[in-house]
Amino acid sequence: MSRPFNFAPGPATLPQEVLEQAAAEMLDWRGTGMSVMEMSHRGAAFTEIAETALRDLRELLQVPAHMRVLLMQGGAIAENAIVPLNLSRGTVADYVVTGAWSKKSHAEARKYCEARLAASTEDSGFTTLPVADQWRLSHQASYVHLCSNETVHGVQWPALPDVRALGGAAPLAVDCSSDIGSRAIDWSQVGVAYAGAQKNLGPSGVTVVIVREDLLGHALPSCPSAFDYKIVADNDSMYNTPPTYAIYIMGLVLQWMKRQSYKGLHGLAAIEQRNQDKAHLLYEVIDASDLYINRVQAHCRSLMNVPFFLSRDELNPVFLAEAQARDLLQLKGHKSVGGMRASLYNAMPLEGVQSLVSFMKDFATRHG
Amino acid sequence: MSRPFNFAPGPATLPQEVLEQAAAEMLDWRGTGMSVMEMSHRGAAFTEIAETALRDLRELLQVPAHMRVLLMQGGAIAENAIVPLNLSRGTVADYVVTGAWSKKSHAEARKYCEARLAASTEDSGFTTLPVADQWRLSHQASYVHLCSNETVHGVQWPALPDVRALGGAAPLAVDCSSDIGSRAIDWSQVGVAYAGAQKNLGPSGVTVVIVREDLLGHALPSCPSAFDYKIVADNDSMYNTPPTYAIYIMGLVLQWMKRQSYKGLHGLAAIEQRNQDKAHLLYEVIDASDLYINRVQAHCRSLMNVPFFLSRDELNPVFLAEAQARDLLQLKGHKSVGGMRASLYNAMPLEGVQSLVSFMKDFATRHG
Repeated sequence: MSRPFNFAPGPATLPQEVLEQAAAEMLDWRGTGMSVMEMSHRGAAFTEIAETALRDLRELLQVPAHMRVLLMQGGAIAENAIVPLNLSRGTVADYVVTGAWSKKSHAEARKYCEARLAASTEDSGFTTLPVADQWRLSHQASYVHLCSNETVHGVQWPALPDVRALGGAAPLAVDCSSDIGSRAIDWSQVGVAYAGAQKNLGPSGVTVVIVREDLLGHALPSCPSAFDYKIVADNDSMYNTPPTYAIYIMGLVLQWMKRQSYKGLHGLAAIEQRNQDKAHLLYEVIDASDLYINRVQAHCRSLMNVPFFLSRDELNPVFLAEAQARDLLQLKGHKSVGGMRASLYNAMPLEGVQSLVSFMKDFATRHG
Repeated sequence: MSRPFNFAPGPATLPQEVLEQAAAEMLDWRGTGMSVMEMSHRGAAFTEIAETALRDLRELLQVPAHMRVLLMQGGAIAENAIVPLNLSRGTVADYVVTGAWSKKSHAEARKYCEARLAASTEDSGFTTLPVADQWRLSHQASYVHLCSNETVHGVQWPALPDVRALGGAAPLAVDCSSDIGSRAIDWSQVGVAYAGAQKNLGPSGVTVVIVREDLLGHALPSCPSAFDYKIVADNDSMYNTPPTYAIYIMGLVLQWMKRQSYKGLHGLAAIEQRNQDKAHLLYEVIDASDLYINRVQAHCRSLMNVPFFLSRDELNPVFLAEAQARDLLQLKGHKSVGGMRASLYNAMPLEGVQSLVSFMKDFATRHG
């Protein structure tokens, strides 16, 4: 069966093997006589599913032993409040604003603490990252928040910044919703990393929170119990009924990730290399044509979300209609910026990007 | 295909037709070339799925036009905080405690307002409902909270109490997680009703909130934006990425509900009558045998969750093992009360209860 290529920014394409396994197991998970959706979250079968998923996630991302992995609900937008509720202690937090998502995080945090603007690239139209002398880190900060990949503006930190070298001392709080699982993470400075699953890890409805154990237990009194990291951790993410089916699908995706190989690499290393190759293919075509425009500086262009504009606006509907006719789906850009956006998450095969760039070259020849 | 009968308290059994349709549509929803899990939540296909589900829910439950239906995350345990964050205005709220769940709601609300105990049946071991002269309603209360069906203790309000007749004036806030969709609701006094979907409506991970429009817009400053009813309503439940697949399955369950007929009744009326007949069958066997014990007073016995004990504790593992061998699954009681519990949600067929009572009679004959 050949499926269209789906470039949606999230919820996003999933590996076909995962969907096939989910369909096959829908009415009866391994002889239990139950769908995963019908299992008690405290029963032996679902416990095995959840524990396997957590073990695979820790293994793939090399999560250190002193960090806890929590499965929550509400996505990154809820975490924008949940992080300061848990970590700020009502004092100071530093925010680095590099696009729509970190800007939103900063605004929400102001409800709970003195959320300072440590650096912003808004003046550039969110096309770059702050350079060293633009940072203003606070000595009192409880954490330094950033978004590792800006899904709307297509800006990604090539590596997490070295807060200490920039004059700071606080741990990082990283919204990695749209690049978790796409590459290795250097955990050395991370206090908490959080991600809605609906880009690289699975369906929407489950949020992964990876938090340093020593940061637990300091939630503000107004933090809802269901979102208090300490309570969630103490109850192995079962304090409130977890989104069981979303966790199951995430587990299947993690198993798929472990099976990947590419250019002699395996698992996450294979995925990371393939993601680089996929993005390179697309940026190359964009830069080679006058019809396509991406203004993000080369060193921080996102490997996950590639926004681009057509130099002739009137061609936008033509481009989208022709793409759709070639089974290249969901390429319309975010409403706040317009144009196009191709999201190249892990589950987007190399062939999908090859098909897209082949179409784009042809389209440029005909309309350029 | 014959499946075991699954008496789990939630996540719980789902209609086989729903699971079959979900499996069939897993890789390609109606020719879109996408799984529902892979669709943008703002795209035309998912918008149709969500709007149909909301329309069906309104129709089945006869939700009045002045109430909004919101789809959220976090389940009833998160709502224990979200309700006072949205409705209490930091003042007074009345709580009626009739079991483990309403007790938990009351404790959580104390973080956000003066949550008074308007009535409690804890002294009875949660085997009854408060009578009129036990109520102490506050004139200043912003709402009166109760749980319409106590999943752990098996106590259900046969109808919502008449707050005005009891001296109150505030609207009801109803946790109806475990009986929503099992019977008609009298909305006349309801300010907000909320329910995790994982009993009667679908999988875990989506929370239904039905709230009077005039109560929106008064959230406390510390309410996370993702849980501010007004923001959620203004964004048609798309402020944060919704749990799309859980909403899709809920939509299939609602369509199944509309198709039901029983004893000449249709839709919710058929479901309600069948639920009464199912519960009657089981309570009859419990009351007829000295081996089985249920202490809840007859007028408030739950039609959804039937906890019972064996008069000889040493038989508990035997009962569970024999039941399992007859394909009667997940009958173990909640850890806090012990014994057994049979949950008889909408998707439990009459044949499932017939099979259970037939086993219980036989077991009582052999061991009674």
